[in-house]
Amino acid sequence: MPANLYEYAYMLEKGIRNSGEFATLKQAYENVQANSGAKALFDHFRHLQLKLQEKQVQGLPITEEEAKQAQASMAAAQANPAIVQLINAEQRLSAVLNEINKILVKPIEELYAGK
Amino acid sequence: MPANLYEYAYMLEKGIRNSGEFATLKQAYENVQANSGAKALFDHFRHLQLKLQEKQVQGLPITEEEAKQAQASMAAAQANPAIVQLINAEQRLSAVLNEINKILVKPIEELYAGK
Ligand SMILES: [Ca+2]
Ligand SMILES: [Ca+2]
Repeated sequence: MPANLYEYAYMLEKGIRNSGEFATLKQAYENVQANSGAKALFDHFRHLQLKLQEKQVQGLPITEEEAKQAQASMAAAQANPAIVQLINAEQRLSAVLNEINKILVKPIEELYAGK
Repeated sequence: MPANLYEYAYMLEKGIRNSGEFATLKQAYENVQANSGAKALFDHFRHLQLKLQEKQVQGLPITEEEAKQAQASMAAAQANPAIVQLINAEQRLSAVLNEINKILVKPIEELYAGK
């Protein structure tokens, strides 16, 4: 990768690290970590979520049992305010990263659109 | 998104637009566009590729007929040097974007790794 792209990417990374969105995520993550009940619920929820996502990516079927487990785990997680805050904070930072990505793929998009 | 993140993202986008990797992609894309035979092969190959990717994302089955079509289309595309150059150029720019993305998700990764 060209050296100046590394430089710009690291500036952007530092900007993300210093953003209000990241500070909110960090605080929400630490709140969940500090509460053993919330932490256990969140870890279980995230573990199931990643497992199902992996199966989906690999095109493997998701069993009824697994779908039920995931739903129950999500319901339990969503009943916990600290976890809800963490998931919302993740979604807001993820939206920022999506916006950044849309900007970065513009050169390719425009080329392929014949602009 | 915070204003400074937009600024940094646009600097990075401009850096991508001015990179050797993007210039190579642009040239390879224009070579394919200028050759009606190569263009038809590439468009057909890309159309099938996107169709199958979409099915995979949606968890829909890919028929034997579709897999055969995709293989034949890929073989025809790979026999064309202009298309091979374009696919290679796409992969090199895609590698740059992946490296950038790895840098941008570091704050989140480190937070979740407890660093
Ligand atoms: Ca280079
Ligand atoms: Ca903000």
